Amino acid sequence: MPQNQVIVLAARPQGAAGPEHFRLQSQPTPDLQDGQVLVRHHYLSLDPYMRGRMNEGKSYAAPQPLGEVMIGGTVGEVVQSRSPRFAVGDPVVGMGGWQIYSVVDAEQPGALRKVDTSHVPLSHYLGAVGMPGVTAWHGLVRIIEPQAGQTVAVSAASGAVGSAVGVLAKARGCRVVGIAGGADKCDYVVRELGFDACIDHRAHADAAALSKALKAACPNGIDGYFENVGGKVLDAVMLRMNAFGRIAVCGMVAGYDGQPLPMAYPALILVQRLKVQGFIVSEHIQDWPPALKELGQLVGSGRFRPRETVARGLESAPQAFLGLLQGRNFGKQLVRLL
Amino acid sequence: MPQNQVIVLAARPQGAAGPEHFRLQSQPTPDLQDGQVLVRHHYLSLDPYMRGRMNEGKSYAAPQPLGEVMIGGTVGEVVQSRSPRFAVGDPVVGMGGWQIYSVVDAEQPGALRKVDTSHVPLSHYLGAVGMPGVTAWHGLVRIIEPQAGQTVAVSAASGAVGSAVGVLAKARGCRVVGIAGGADKCDYVVRELGFDACIDHRAHADAAALSKALKAACPNGIDGYFENVGGKVLDAVMLRMNAFGRIAVCGMVAGYDGQPLPMAYPALILVQRLKVQGFIVSEHIQDWPPALKELGQLVGSGRFRPRETVARGLESAPQAFLGLLQGRNFGKQLVRLL
Repeated sequence: MPQNQVIVLAARPQGAAGPEHFRLQSQPTPDLQDGQVLVRHHYLSLDPYMRGRMNEGKSYAAPQPLGEVMIGGTVGEVVQSRSPRFAVGDPVVGMGGWQIYSVVDAEQPGALRKVDTSHVPLSHYLGAVGMPGVTAWHGLVRIIEPQAGQTVAVSAASGAVGSAVGVLAKARGCRVVGIAGGADKCDYVVRELGFDACIDHRAHADAAALSKALKAACPNGIDGYFENVGGKVLDAVMLRMNAFGRIAVCGMVAGYDGQPLPMAYPALILVQRLKVQGFIVSEHIQDWPPALKELGQLVGSGRFRPRETVARGLESAPQAFLGLLQGRNFGKQLVRLL
Repeated sequence: MPQNQVIVLAARPQGAAGPEHFRLQSQPTPDLQDGQVLVRHHYLSLDPYMRGRMNEGKSYAAPQPLGEVMIGGTVGEVVQSRSPRFAVGDPVVGMGGWQIYSVVDAEQPGALRKVDTSHVPLSHYLGAVGMPGVTAWHGLVRIIEPQAGQTVAVSAASGAVGSAVGVLAKARGCRVVGIAGGADKCDYVVRELGFDACIDHRAHADAAALSKALKAACPNGIDGYFENVGGKVLDAVMLRMNAFGRIAVCGMVAGYDGQPLPMAYPALILVQRLKVQGFIVSEHIQDWPPALKELGQLVGSGRFRPRETVARGLESAPQAFLGLLQGRNFGKQLVRLL
């Protein structure tokens, strides 16, 4: 069996995460048991949820154990198989973690999925046609429930989730307004993704200024908001929500480091009769097939061209992840492991 | 026609409301036109929503006009009629405002409703079997959607809305925990209304202390929360919400005077996948018949004995209203006008 390279959680952050919380190490790959396959990862997915897992204590998922391989989505190729369900050479998506190889119990439902790379590049199964895409679909379709002609806003609009929210909302006849950090991201969101407008939150010092910019971009107010960020951006959007607006809460990246992140104007939930609802995509298994079908068609047909930021080599994963938390990536953050 | 006594909004509060914002005046009662009736009010209802109407600017309802009679629910008796739909002597409920008499266009749908006082005292049509009761019913049944065995919490638990929430939730097999201000109110909530427990928020200095008391009273966490207050109480409850909990936002009395009232832990909406939804009962007309039927049966059978605080005379309305905003009332706050 080949020697493996892995990154483990070395320590839990007290405050901001840093490179000292990760450790790269070599370790042997165990021999396969019956029903297992060996996967050689091509790409590792980096996602904001991983920051929450690094903390101890109450969250929606068990914390990442100390000293064990960091969890994470991966795409790759089956290189050894003792399962009748997978053959050597199969392109697969799974939760292989921050490592070069993974040994997978292939009989466990959902552990590994064979994918079709004839129209969709393998890496997109970690982004637009994977967990982030389904996340976008669920929050938009099930919580925001947009009607044609309504205005939908989304934060982190150039990211893996936000970009899919926008494309899916445009396909439903909505006016779509993004919020992103930086002029280059806003430019991409409008020109390549087809959003109607995008606001650079870095150009606006506080919620009041950002809210004013939103007013100009959303002359009819905001009916649905897909929240990836929290804090100032959420406050600014709430001031622009229409009566009976819906807010799907998918992420609050701004609060992952543990500092309290209050909502400034909760009374607007009453005044505007808003619905504010949190969700986690893994709890909505029934939505994966319809979501992946629609997203696969959008990507396969070229109507949705997701952007990726690709770091090279497993050793680059910690810095790429820390950059993601600060918004330094552009589109889906991946680590190429080949 | 009899001379009328009315209370008008004299000025808009900048900050806390005070007696100087109201003015009592005499004015003639206009002659009836065809289709109109004259109602002699027996009781005026005082409700927290009136404070929001006193402000200028964006809210869910048009502001109370300056110099005009304060809006408000009333019960009374038809004393003159030029409508075939109402006879002299009919007991009626309507929105007569802060005054002794009102002239009502009886043909306008919903303007005036004849009520049955054989089993339910007239005043209860302003409380448990009126707008506050329907408010409780809608938030509980449509937003919280409680299941038998779940835990439901409600703030301002001894008030007109809160007491009905508790009785309706008990009728659905829930564990019901109230939050109220003062030992006497908590005692009433448990002994007379049948709540399982009640916490005196005045005995707990901050959200952390209140949350600890909630933990003891809700050993299985909180599945549904009916919010009448906001601020510290909301923060404390959110720390105890179970996964997939529902929060019906009916009032944020603590914020009516205009000071910002942040929500401390909005990230819990994501972590616990909460649904937080605001509503206004007047927008859910379809719920009034089933709600009034159930509440009328609960009150008529004696299973729900709502408490009232009754001020005497129209001139006492401003002080009674200001007391209501500070929680000095006990149960439904009324003004007796006979």
